[in-house]
Amino acid sequence: MSKVTKVVLAYSGGLDTSAIIPWLKENYDCEVVAFVADVGQGAAELEGIEEKAIASGASSCYIADLKEEMVADYIYPSLKTGAIYEGKYLLGTSMARPIIAKAQVECALAVGADAVCHGCTGKGNDQVRFEGAYAALAPQLTVIAPWREWDLRSREALLDYLAERDIPCTASLEKIYSRDANAWHISTEGGVLENTWNQSNELCWVWTKDPENAPEKAETVSILVEKGEVVAVDGEAMSPFNALTYLNEKGAEHGVGRIDIVENRLVGIKSRGCYETPGGTIMNEALRAVEQLVLDKESYEFRETVGLKASHLIYDGRWFTPLCKSILAAADELAQDVSGEVVVKLYKGQATVIQKRSMNSLYSEEFATFGEDDVYDHSHAGGFIRLYSLASRIRALNTQKKQK
Amino acid sequence: MSKVTKVVLAYSGGLDTSAIIPWLKENYDCEVVAFVADVGQGAAELEGIEEKAIASGASSCYIADLKEEMVADYIYPSLKTGAIYEGKYLLGTSMARPIIAKAQVECALAVGADAVCHGCTGKGNDQVRFEGAYAALAPQLTVIAPWREWDLRSREALLDYLAERDIPCTASLEKIYSRDANAWHISTEGGVLENTWNQSNELCWVWTKDPENAPEKAETVSILVEKGEVVAVDGEAMSPFNALTYLNEKGAEHGVGRIDIVENRLVGIKSRGCYETPGGTIMNEALRAVEQLVLDKESYEFRETVGLKASHLIYDGRWFTPLCKSILAAADELAQDVSGEVVVKLYKGQATVIQKRSMNSLYSEEFATFGEDDVYDHSHAGGFIRLYSLASRIRALNTQKKQK
Amino acid sequence: MSKVTKVVLAYSGGLDTSAIIPWLKENYDCEVVAFVADVGQGAAELEGIEEKAIASGASSCYIADLKEEMVADYIYPSLKTGAIYEGKYLLGTSMARPIIAKAQVECALAVGADAVCHGCTGKGNDQVRFEGAYAALAPQLTVIAPWREWDLRSREALLDYLAERDIPCTASLEKIYSRDANAWHISTEGGVLENTWNQSNELCWVWTKDPENAPEKAETVSILVEKGEVVAVDGEAMSPFNALTYLNEKGAEHGVGRIDIVENRLVGIKSRGCYETPGGTIMNEALRAVEQLVLDKESYEFRETVGLKASHLIYDGRWFTPLCKSILAAADELAQDVSGEVVVKLYKGQATVIQKRSMNSLYSEEFATFGEDDVYDHSHAGGFIRLYSLASRIRALNTQKKQK
Amino acid sequence: MSKVTKVVLAYSGGLDTSAIIPWLKENYDCEVVAFVADVGQGAAELEGIEEKAIASGASSCYIADLKEEMVADYIYPSLKTGAIYEGKYLLGTSMARPIIAKAQVECALAVGADAVCHGCTGKGNDQVRFEGAYAALAPQLTVIAPWREWDLRSREALLDYLAERDIPCTASLEKIYSRDANAWHISTEGGVLENTWNQSNELCWVWTKDPENAPEKAETVSILVEKGEVVAVDGEAMSPFNALTYLNEKGAEHGVGRIDIVENRLVGIKSRGCYETPGGTIMNEALRAVEQLVLDKESYEFRETVGLKASHLIYDGRWFTPLCKSILAAADELAQDVSGEVVVKLYKGQATVIQKRSMNSLYSEEFATFGEDDVYDHSHAGGFIRLYSLASRIRALNTQKKQK
Repeated sequence: MSKVTKVVLAYSGGLDTSAIIPWLKENYDCEVVAFVADVGQGAAELEGIEEKAIASGASSCYIADLKEEMVADYIYPSLKTGAIYEGKYLLGTSMARPIIAKAQVECALAVGADAVCHGCTGKGNDQVRFEGAYAALAPQLTVIAPWREWDLRSREALLDYLAERDIPCTASLEKIYSRDANAWHISTEGGVLENTWNQSNELCWVWTKDPENAPEKAETVSILVEKGEVVAVDGEAMSPFNALTYLNEKGAEHGVGRIDIVENRLVGIKSRGCYETPGGTIMNEALRAVEQLVLDKESYEFRETVGLKASHLIYDGRWFTPLCKSILAAADELAQDVSGEVVVKLYKGQATVIQKRSMNSLYSEEFATFGEDDVYDHSHAGGFIRLYSLASRIRALNTQKKQK
Repeated sequence: MSKVTKVVLAYSGGLDTSAIIPWLKENYDCEVVAFVADVGQGAAELEGIEEKAIASGASSCYIADLKEEMVADYIYPSLKTGAIYEGKYLLGTSMARPIIAKAQVECALAVGADAVCHGCTGKGNDQVRFEGAYAALAPQLTVIAPWREWDLRSREALLDYLAERDIPCTASLEKIYSRDANAWHISTEGGVLENTWNQSNELCWVWTKDPENAPEKAETVSILVEKGEVVAVDGEAMSPFNALTYLNEKGAEHGVGRIDIVENRLVGIKSRGCYETPGGTIMNEALRAVEQLVLDKESYEFRETVGLKASHLIYDGRWFTPLCKSILAAADELAQDVSGEVVVKLYKGQATVIQKRSMNSLYSEEFATFGEDDVYDHSHAGGFIRLYSLASRIRALNTQKKQK
Repeated sequence: MSKVTKVVLAYSGGLDTSAIIPWLKENYDCEVVAFVADVGQGAAELEGIEEKAIASGASSCYIADLKEEMVADYIYPSLKTGAIYEGKYLLGTSMARPIIAKAQVECALAVGADAVCHGCTGKGNDQVRFEGAYAALAPQLTVIAPWREWDLRSREALLDYLAERDIPCTASLEKIYSRDANAWHISTEGGVLENTWNQSNELCWVWTKDPENAPEKAETVSILVEKGEVVAVDGEAMSPFNALTYLNEKGAEHGVGRIDIVENRLVGIKSRGCYETPGGTIMNEALRAVEQLVLDKESYEFRETVGLKASHLIYDGRWFTPLCKSILAAADELAQDVSGEVVVKLYKGQATVIQKRSMNSLYSEEFATFGEDDVYDHSHAGGFIRLYSLASRIRALNTQKKQK
Repeated sequence: MSKVTKVVLAYSGGLDTSAIIPWLKENYDCEVVAFVADVGQGAAELEGIEEKAIASGASSCYIADLKEEMVADYIYPSLKTGAIYEGKYLLGTSMARPIIAKAQVECALAVGADAVCHGCTGKGNDQVRFEGAYAALAPQLTVIAPWREWDLRSREALLDYLAERDIPCTASLEKIYSRDANAWHISTEGGVLENTWNQSNELCWVWTKDPENAPEKAETVSILVEKGEVVAVDGEAMSPFNALTYLNEKGAEHGVGRIDIVENRLVGIKSRGCYETPGGTIMNEALRAVEQLVLDKESYEFRETVGLKASHLIYDGRWFTPLCKSILAAADELAQDVSGEVVVKLYKGQATVIQKRSMNSLYSEEFATFGEDDVYDHSHAGGFIRLYSLASRIRALNTQKKQK
């Protein structure tokens, strides 16, 4: 074991990181500083968290409010790329990890720590995301990943571990589902979901109404997009975090943003999760709709390529790399024209764009319809097609020549 | 004008191609053979079509039943690629054009024609798709595209043209929307849709129920997939066309498969259309769900790349090219393991996979959960992460060295 | 024919554009302004060009020195992408067209012209590149492309046309090869090259020595690269144009930078050309060598993807599009670390990097060799491989299970 | 340590694998079977290898002649993709590993072994390639990688280890360079190459003449390509292995096929190597030249994409995956038209295609030149360009409208 004297732990207040505090002190003989990132996981999770950390043995507890920064500097740039992992997943957990790790590292440098620690398990993606960020930002810090070291293997073992040390803990023995929440989404894994042939049940969904219980009456929201970013909703200018929160409420009420997927983890296994991203789903639909108006054919295709590439980089914990910066720069450049207004209809689980317009729209009623216009002349098409299919023509003529 | 003696026209029985028959005879002094492709556009459109063609002046009329072939040899291979144009469009019109053009060319060669003709306008994609196929399959045939030649510019002009020649026509003056249907989808353009800020109305949707009027009670269908193809539905083995028809009915009833988009046409302009693809939407969701179980991370990413590339090739009328064959070969190879069973829930416009399983599933309850297993050892992750983030670490160490 | 009053012609002083001046005046009844772009094609081509333009009937002649701008703002950004068209072509003509068209448009706007004209033929790429730039920069200007309009079809016809009008012309009847030169390269087409089975001969190469006649003794040049740009050569800081000129001389002496290829033109046909890019070949090798030291695996792969995409955009005349800007932004971001020093050996047609180093190098003697180090631990590899091949393992276990 | 009874070792006869035999017996208390793959590394390496294996303690030694199979089933399919790793490396070691591992596994299954072992170090790519193949082909076998287990860290330690056990060994203490050879290439690492600023010296190159000492007189070879495969050389039909051997001799004599690069290993570090691939370089040039004649623009671009993707899959040891099969299927489909004849000139380190022709050539003297023809009409270009640049035009018109 490496020799460390002061560790900054990414602390959530949950059972795992509560047990990690005494475990670190006992096994590394070090001071433990608890670091809490507020990424919008909700007031309930943050209430009394400082006291809890101290009670578990932390020497101090720092709470960083990262909500606006996360939406503005991590989510909005990602949204411009159109990144959706494996066709469905809006990357809620993935986008939160780099900002948490970065703030944790800043805390570690500020308090003079020589190590950082996280509570991620050894089978998940998050360990890679945290440690990828540590490596890029502060490679000199020792990394401690208790789940890959200790032999505690169940909730029961963790509860016993705390009880033996008289550390108070409100966690219950029975916790079927594993969840992760931030301003963008909440994920649920485990329990009934572990067999892919099982349907999800009501416990698998937390934020959103079941579409079957959502209002019978549809509702609309209008969204103003500027340079690829949501800047106002329903006529009101909003900060990124506020816009997201507002749309989360609207979307959740109508059952918008549920997915239930099996995905490829970076570490080589597959896992199943239920994700709820109500506001994010609406934002994503809105941005793509403006792109429909604004991006030309080749640009749209490239934006999709960029999104596909970005989805893996973000999922895989590659945020703090030159490659990710390059991809984000490409997307940001493409988004310079992506400004416009969109109306989205929310109904029974769906967010559907029903109106859209843009000053930069390449769509023109005049050009698209059958009448005459100055810009498009029917006769141009003949030459276009001839050259466009010339290779096919020559190839076919060759084949006929060979057959003779 | 080229000298031609016998032209085979892709004839639909509608106003445009009805006017084309006399126009060809008058302007090219040639015999006109009407060719009708049955691609599942519906009995109504085919009823009495032979008589109509003859009445319009065709020397004969051939009807080819292409329904099963289209689904089996054009749609299923495309579905394996996952091609969705610009993120939304399931390529209904695009996939029908090559098979129609191919059968038309075969007809032309059989009857000894020296020209082929289509009724596509000069601003659309279909002219490129038809003529791209002609160039690849029979470059020696002269191509006639009346919409790029004549000076008829409105429905009124066409009706007058027919009336002057005493050719009976049931088409009405007022036809606001332009539509195209086949077994896979129906499209609607024009009218209120020409302004992107207008909402679609009830006339824009033909096959599917409005989700708001769809049944309150959800319904499920089960789909059996083998090597990337739907082979049985609700426990019954079905031919490709029959499976599609069955799912079209189910999907339409629940308002599934509507999209309302602005898209980039190949010819450089944008257009707006409402597309309904009820059965296709269900099939697509089912295939992707089996892929979730079966494809590893890099394979899934490549399948998405292939789908993106294929979406453009198919949309752009590149079916009969070596490149398209290459892409389809790649997708078919990837689909060899894509076998499994899926249950899809239909409700108020949504088709949601709620159960899925496969003999080839890489998902394993045993591996994904937190317990011990033979295949995945927590300790492996430490080494993995270390090497995975090594470049980041070295880069950061370099930066620190330079700063000293 | 459109009504125009004043045309700015991209004038080269050659036979074609000399004939275009009177042709425009006669056919469009307009004033013709000659615009000459100095992109480093050489003093010989520019000598007396103003007088020649006036003698041919131009009302005035403007010469713009674009040499430094072309290398700094068009070639260097392109080089960062690594764009090489179809594996060989360094895009010499392609990169010159946008800057010429842009300066021509600026001239047209400055002199109040209502039209622009170029002398490109109807079978080439350059017409697309010029007109693509015009469309993006000044769509209101009328575009005149005489080669697609007039019925002059040979050098003889052009010479006769000028002789009939008593316009002096030094062009000879016999000009076998068609060439295009700028600071970056010279191209040669036509003559013996028109049959791909013919070898090129000594007339096909203009700038570079035949490798077989190049010096027996190799020579080296050292190149300093900063952020993906050549900033000094052989120890001396040089402007982009000067660096290129210096390397052109060195490279040409040693027969470096010849290619003889068949390429796909944008307009659907193939053509064969001999291209000489001596300095550019050296610069490209130097940049790639620094990238070898600096870019991690995924970044290098993405740089190659970007280069492939950029090669088509640049070749296809897409410089002034949002997509090209996006690609260039991605490449520029990746190039931020591409700084270092390289020694290139020139010998008998080859430019080979023989030494390279960089402050940002991810290569480390310490890590790469077999001994112990702090950063890389052999034991990490076991875990890495296990997870890296996990999907293969699970797939194989599935197969074995099914076979039982 | 796992319990194993019989291990099949990939045995080369070199120092490392000679030491592994007794080490396995001592540490695993198991029988060791030596497996030798003949992939064209040369007679010298194979001479007396069976005796050597037995003398080192192996219970038996199997030698598999894989030469033709490697070229036909691994190299030729890879060549069709055009895979070149990081722009330079022709993947010589990478392509040999899967076939060796596959034959080794077959041997293990045949002799009833329960483990396989290789002698690759813990910092290289080969461990991943071997173990990736094992995982895909026989996941039930235990994998032993001594270099990641034992504490022998130098040649001296290995020699002492053998000496202590009285095992004869002809290896010398001083071996500066590490090499790997097969029919396709030879690689050299270590020694002077460990500093990237050092030039390679004469010890770094084994097969090929220094270009400066190569013949003053150029030589040509003619190559017949069918469906992307070399089928005859200099007028004589040859098996894949024989063609390669023949071209290796020709190329080596003229110093063709040397590269000296820094590359990204899969395990996160960079390494430098000198690679010699004389015949492979000639084959690659020949194939690409036929492609120049045969592939249309979009196909060529896709072939480059496929090659880029394949280069990583092959380098990364992904041969036995569905993804690699998919990529190879795509390339094979594209290669169906890649037939033709090429003449390559060899001179002072360069292999240059100087003549090429194909029955499937899309190049046509008639179409490419300036005269009239039936297939290409100058006037087509006007329409083509207009539509091709339409989005740029509309965008520019929008911008002008906004500025007003």
